[in-house]
Amino acid sequence: MKLQTTQKDHPLLYRQVYDHIVARIQRGELVAHDKLPSIRMLAGELQVHRLTVFRAYQLLKEEGKAYVKEKSGYYVAPMHEITGLPTYEKSSAAARTYRNEMSDIQRVPSVYQFSQALIDPNLLPNLYLSQYVKEVFDRYPKMIGTYSDLQGDAELRDFLGDYMTGRLKVSISADELIITSGAQQAIDLLARLYIRPLDAVMVERPTYSAALDIFRAQGARFLPVDISPGGYDLVQVEEMMKRHKPRFFYMNPTFHNPTGYSVPAGQRKELVALAEKYQCLLVEDDTFRDIYFGEPPSLPLFTYDTEGWVIYLSSFSKYVAPGLRICAVVGRSSVIQPLLTLKSLADNGSPLVNQKLFLHYFGSERMQNHLEKLRIALQIRRDLMIESLRDTGWQWTVPEGGLNLWVKLPDQLSVDMLWQRATAEAVSFVPGAVFDPKREMRSWFRLSYSFVNEEQIRTGMRLLTNLAGSMDNR
Amino acid sequence: MKLQTTQKDHPLLYRQVYDHIVARIQRGELVAHDKLPSIRMLAGELQVHRLTVFRAYQLLKEEGKAYVKEKSGYYVAPMHEITGLPTYEKSSAAARTYRNEMSDIQRVPSVYQFSQALIDPNLLPNLYLSQYVKEVFDRYPKMIGTYSDLQGDAELRDFLGDYMTGRLKVSISADELIITSGAQQAIDLLARLYIRPLDAVMVERPTYSAALDIFRAQGARFLPVDISPGGYDLVQVEEMMKRHKPRFFYMNPTFHNPTGYSVPAGQRKELVALAEKYQCLLVEDDTFRDIYFGEPPSLPLFTYDTEGWVIYLSSFSKYVAPGLRICAVVGRSSVIQPLLTLKSLADNGSPLVNQKLFLHYFGSERMQNHLEKLRIALQIRRDLMIESLRDTGWQWTVPEGGLNLWVKLPDQLSVDMLWQRATAEAVSFVPGAVFDPKREMRSWFRLSYSFVNEEQIRTGMRLLTNLAGSMDNR
Repeated sequence: MKLQTTQKDHPLLYRQVYDHIVARIQRGELVAHDKLPSIRMLAGELQVHRLTVFRAYQLLKEEGKAYVKEKSGYYVAPMHEITGLPTYEKSSAAARTYRNEMSDIQRVPSVYQFSQALIDPNLLPNLYLSQYVKEVFDRYPKMIGTYSDLQGDAELRDFLGDYMTGRLKVSISADELIITSGAQQAIDLLARLYIRPLDAVMVERPTYSAALDIFRAQGARFLPVDISPGGYDLVQVEEMMKRHKPRFFYMNPTFHNPTGYSVPAGQRKELVALAEKYQCLLVEDDTFRDIYFGEPPSLPLFTYDTEGWVIYLSSFSKYVAPGLRICAVVGRSSVIQPLLTLKSLADNGSPLVNQKLFLHYFGSERMQNHLEKLRIALQIRRDLMIESLRDTGWQWTVPEGGLNLWVKLPDQLSVDMLWQRATAEAVSFVPGAVFDPKREMRSWFRLSYSFVNEEQIRTGMRLLTNLAGSMDNR
Repeated sequence: MKLQTTQKDHPLLYRQVYDHIVARIQRGELVAHDKLPSIRMLAGELQVHRLTVFRAYQLLKEEGKAYVKEKSGYYVAPMHEITGLPTYEKSSAAARTYRNEMSDIQRVPSVYQFSQALIDPNLLPNLYLSQYVKEVFDRYPKMIGTYSDLQGDAELRDFLGDYMTGRLKVSISADELIITSGAQQAIDLLARLYIRPLDAVMVERPTYSAALDIFRAQGARFLPVDISPGGYDLVQVEEMMKRHKPRFFYMNPTFHNPTGYSVPAGQRKELVALAEKYQCLLVEDDTFRDIYFGEPPSLPLFTYDTEGWVIYLSSFSKYVAPGLRICAVVGRSSVIQPLLTLKSLADNGSPLVNQKLFLHYFGSERMQNHLEKLRIALQIRRDLMIESLRDTGWQWTVPEGGLNLWVKLPDQLSVDMLWQRATAEAVSFVPGAVFDPKREMRSWFRLSYSFVNEEQIRTGMRLLTNLAGSMDNR
């Protein structure tokens, strides 16, 4: 067993060791007056420095959760003997530390916004939408005064069930579907449902940074699976499932964020077979399916799944109506039922208004026409951004869909330094390390072409490549 | 103690019994080699079938959490002897168990819906709302295509800051305010921010059931503070803060749910002084402030707070626009900043459309007129429900605001039995034990008068009191 290597040097690593021991006490694996593992042993087991374990044990002692016997070691304190509270909690006002690195980066103000994998609002049919809204309110005059079904508006679930059934060629009923506030909430709820501290979770490398932060917050250990233009290394995948029995594999196999790669159709079926064989859930995040530039993408893994090992996230927030925040999670009842309870605790159901507006908008013919135009507009922006890289000597793969370019700088250039300088010039992008569960990939970065118009791409990319050029010459 | 009566015949009921025993082991109430209660005794105590308890004990045995002595019974196994993983976790597909007891009760279909503390949608100015909407969409044509600020729409936060400043006579700026999807999400985020397993949390007794379930899910230990028509026992409050250094005190001091009691103005100031003295955050849930029938209520504790120990939840979901799900959390920067990061992980911000609709609706003169009418309509319903109790011999306190009656049956009557029978007759209410962190208060129950019309109150209450009368005669 090994703790998150990513945080090996992190000053708060001892808190993870601390949490681990507390969790074992809670689960009753360690009871009052049990001896704790020796510092040396635990440091070896968790592959952390002995001082880190020592600090964790000190904290347990300060809190009265452990006591020391001279020349023997640390022991679990009986709980009624807890007298004081931990030092770091002396003020109960101390909040737990959560982190969302990408969000921090995206909140840096910029003019040439290549860090947001969002659709430019100018590309959405806003006027049409606004006209449409009135009709929807006329149809449901009590909509604003009414709570939605916890699982999601029944009419919307019926519609989406039929829509996905027709499109994906598998039968999906309204019961197997729950509406969440975007894919983000779905990922967070699934993490809370499945991950306990120190549980192993398979993730792509690189992958969606906020998902990593969510899993970290639940105390996950990462099992990173490399993704390349050819997909995954299935031998590596099988080995991990077999050895580590991960709680799930979070994947984004179609126009993958940040790389734009897609896992080939042939691998998809095999992955589902592996999931069944090793009883490992696959959480398939399918956010970018409709943003393709050539052929429509391969069917999702979900469609190969007969035994219920795939949880399918179909998010419409990005390109239909970001202001509505609608995602559908599809899974079998053993997933949907506990998810529903957790959703009831988390927000008591998504707002009804958004669901009704989305339903009537997404169901319209106009929407399908809009999607075609959107694909063309995004392809033009993608091509323009690639064109601007032509003479740089940088590396990238032309994405067949999605919103991002995944770019590698030559070895002599530092992405971090480029980021610092670009930010000063109001050009933003996301450094690759943020997407990497191992926090390496320091030569890579993500450029999003979806949020900026053509003029912004031209000017911003000129600024960026010039900056890199000036770094190169020094 | 009694398990969720709603699921009495559910095939997974044994899992609840199992969870109950595991929780008792986790809390250290049962330690290694303790004898478990006999099957007969526990079945009686939990009012479930003996076979259900037997199945739970079998599972404990299979998992190595219990062992059997011939002719004696089941015993808690020492935890280091656990060799395998529990059967139900053999597959990594096993979800964590979350529970929302009130939500389960409310999902039981009924005609006379006295279990929902929601406003009858017919009492909201729906037509006016629908007409208004179009204007809002004309004003923000790109609203559906745009993400909100993570912290909440800036215009809405400005407005609410000014509104609360004017109303509560304390200065609140837009920066000190974050928008969440209802008070429910605010409570959940705060729990995730402040509670770690085994942390002590002060809660009122009784209190909002879903808050208890949220805190339980984070592993909280409860410190229950009795609430009466005179408020709290401040000696008890101080003693708890001093001895246990709780992470926070979650309170609903104005038209308290479920009792309708309000903490007197005199205590409010003292409570803030105690919070400062013992550095204990107060989470003040102020959901029912605008639903008063006599004088407007005392100012919130928040207004006495100069040092930043009160986190103030002002929810508008209930009575303004349940379909929009809007709550404002107000606190100092050391609360708002980490809350913001966690919100970014949880759902990446509340939808913009809802916030803009709420802003323009709540800001209108019409809304204030609506509120006055709403108060009168609810008062009529309250009075009608009280009238229907006149000859019962039951006990209650007339609430000066809020949506609920808190009722005590005479000793010879069982609330659980009344609930079983009422449910069969399509009359629903919430048994008191659900609101009790100690799960006692078995003579009490909550009747909500807000979701049902006058005719439903008359008929439903006649059914309910007749049922109780027939139980009394046996």
